[in-house]
Amino acid sequence: MEVENRYVAVRHHVEGSPSVDDFQVKAEAVRWTPESGEVLVRNMYVSIDPYQLNRMKRQSASHHSVDVIVPGERIASYGAGEVVASACEEYKEGDVVTGLLAWEEYSVFRPAPGIFMSKVDASSGFPLSYQMGVLGTSGMTAYGGFYEVCKPQPGEKVFVSAASGSVGSLVGQFAKLAGCHVVGCAGTQAKVELLKDKLGFDDAFNYKDEPDLKAALRRRFPDGIDIYFENVGGEMLEAALANMNTYGRVALCGVIAEYTDPGRRAEPDLLEVIYKRITLRGFFAWDFIPRFHEWAAIIGGWIEEGKVQAIEDVSDGLESIPSAFVALYRGENVGKKLVKLA
Amino acid sequence: MEVENRYVAVRHHVEGSPSVDDFQVKAEAVRWTPESGEVLVRNMYVSIDPYQLNRMKRQSASHHSVDVIVPGERIASYGAGEVVASACEEYKEGDVVTGLLAWEEYSVFRPAPGIFMSKVDASSGFPLSYQMGVLGTSGMTAYGGFYEVCKPQPGEKVFVSAASGSVGSLVGQFAKLAGCHVVGCAGTQAKVELLKDKLGFDDAFNYKDEPDLKAALRRRFPDGIDIYFENVGGEMLEAALANMNTYGRVALCGVIAEYTDPGRRAEPDLLEVIYKRITLRGFFAWDFIPRFHEWAAIIGGWIEEGKVQAIEDVSDGLESIPSAFVALYRGENVGKKLVKLA
Repeated sequence: MEVENRYVAVRHHVEGSPSVDDFQVKAEAVRWTPESGEVLVRNMYVSIDPYQLNRMKRQSASHHSVDVIVPGERIASYGAGEVVASACEEYKEGDVVTGLLAWEEYSVFRPAPGIFMSKVDASSGFPLSYQMGVLGTSGMTAYGGFYEVCKPQPGEKVFVSAASGSVGSLVGQFAKLAGCHVVGCAGTQAKVELLKDKLGFDDAFNYKDEPDLKAALRRRFPDGIDIYFENVGGEMLEAALANMNTYGRVALCGVIAEYTDPGRRAEPDLLEVIYKRITLRGFFAWDFIPRFHEWAAIIGGWIEEGKVQAIEDVSDGLESIPSAFVALYRGENVGKKLVKLA
Repeated sequence: MEVENRYVAVRHHVEGSPSVDDFQVKAEAVRWTPESGEVLVRNMYVSIDPYQLNRMKRQSASHHSVDVIVPGERIASYGAGEVVASACEEYKEGDVVTGLLAWEEYSVFRPAPGIFMSKVDASSGFPLSYQMGVLGTSGMTAYGGFYEVCKPQPGEKVFVSAASGSVGSLVGQFAKLAGCHVVGCAGTQAKVELLKDKLGFDDAFNYKDEPDLKAALRRRFPDGIDIYFENVGGEMLEAALANMNTYGRVALCGVIAEYTDPGRRAEPDLLEVIYKRITLRGFFAWDFIPRFHEWAAIIGGWIEEGKVQAIEDVSDGLESIPSAFVALYRGENVGKKLVKLA
């Protein structure tokens, strides 16, 4: 069996803010045979995530942990698809899977212990897209980052940056479920209203309206911040640290402002960190893989009970991947950014 | 009973590097009566610590946790002295005490649950000066910072900055006792030799000889750093993070380079922190007060067995306090800096 697979690649390493011209759509023939031991998947959704930009750089600290993206080659990504041919017993034609696929129309994988792939339970009743976000890596990042890294206590004050993004929008909701007071920031008035009106944040503000971020946080946290869920970096981290309480915790999930502009690094006042005995901890979702199913069941229950809303932002078709990706760095997405294929 | 008490004060708030001209010696009459409920102590040693500079600033994050030093007024400090008059049963004339005294000849305290003071066991056989350093706040900072914050495992690679200082010199020795590989940096060749020859560090280097700190650490840690015990800040932290391993831990004990020059802040690459899942944690000794006696007993045992060396640098007389203090920021001290009084 042979299919034509179209995929998105970068033309060259990408530094600074990405543009759609950095990308190209390529095609290749993919062969599958019953003897291959492989599973051929027609992809239905692929995930569009900010961290991918670091993989596209020539040099980045992300290369310690995640493979560099080679210009011209396929770009691995979380995704969901339908099995169209299988040479292994565990997977049958028509099964729907989620896991590590790529920005492409067809992916091939060979089941093995280290392979990050699982079958979707068709009886769950959730839209398949949820497997990309709230029940996928975004949900696990938010759950693990908030509960395991931040260790919240009821009544604590929580600040979330990029709060309308795929992870931030969930962290804020989890914080409310944990009995915390939560304030988010975002980059448009519409996002701020979403946070307050739909997602239950106690307060939210547009950081672009605030010339002095330290003062903005001081006004919104008169009793200080206990937990900062960091998605942004740069001066946002400096402002949060200046407003944090003793024994505060910072979960370093992402620093999107620094992805596109490495010159815009945070210069945290380490005296704040020392004298307030603050802990900053970097993490990412893959550290939590052993607990994915357990946590997905908890989050799924919250969705069914109406306690958690999944916010999605879906583009259509393989050709839209570059513009969907570029939009992340312009703050144009709301919630989880996905591309639906075919 | 009345004594003349001479004390050291700052003339004004101190910003930047301190100089002896920032200080003055003042005198006051101290009255003690049997009805006062107080204990009068003739001070024998006072501790000279880098963090005191932050207390002398007009504005500093240290003011969150430690009282600001008011120009012209007494400067609280860890110290040791002999009771010369007591209005409470727990303390008798001739008892030797350690705890929170001040840079002065006579201190008065009133025993209470929150007061940080304890009697020295005269039978311990240790020099009284050890109560200031290895068995006092320096020892507790090193012990708590290394064992509680860094959580070392045998075989891990440990980097200590300001390694010949009061805390760093102990952390390196504790790291060897924990089965770690330890490298220190200091600012003179003599200090480097002390670390290697007398304190058992596996390696040490003079950071002033290294134009490229990242490369210097890469050469000395070909397998990366697991634990960084931070006493310096600035570019040293950036260089350490660039060389750290996955799940590395940074104990933020002090950032002396940033005390004198707030413009010299570290700009850590947060991508390193996220992708390597590094934890940075600020702390200080007073967090560990409930465990002081337990830990002092452990450290005391190591000293008796010859496993830990106490390095001290003692100046004489109240008048030497300003120059002893200023010397800290010039890297002129080796080990724990103390002033012996009268």
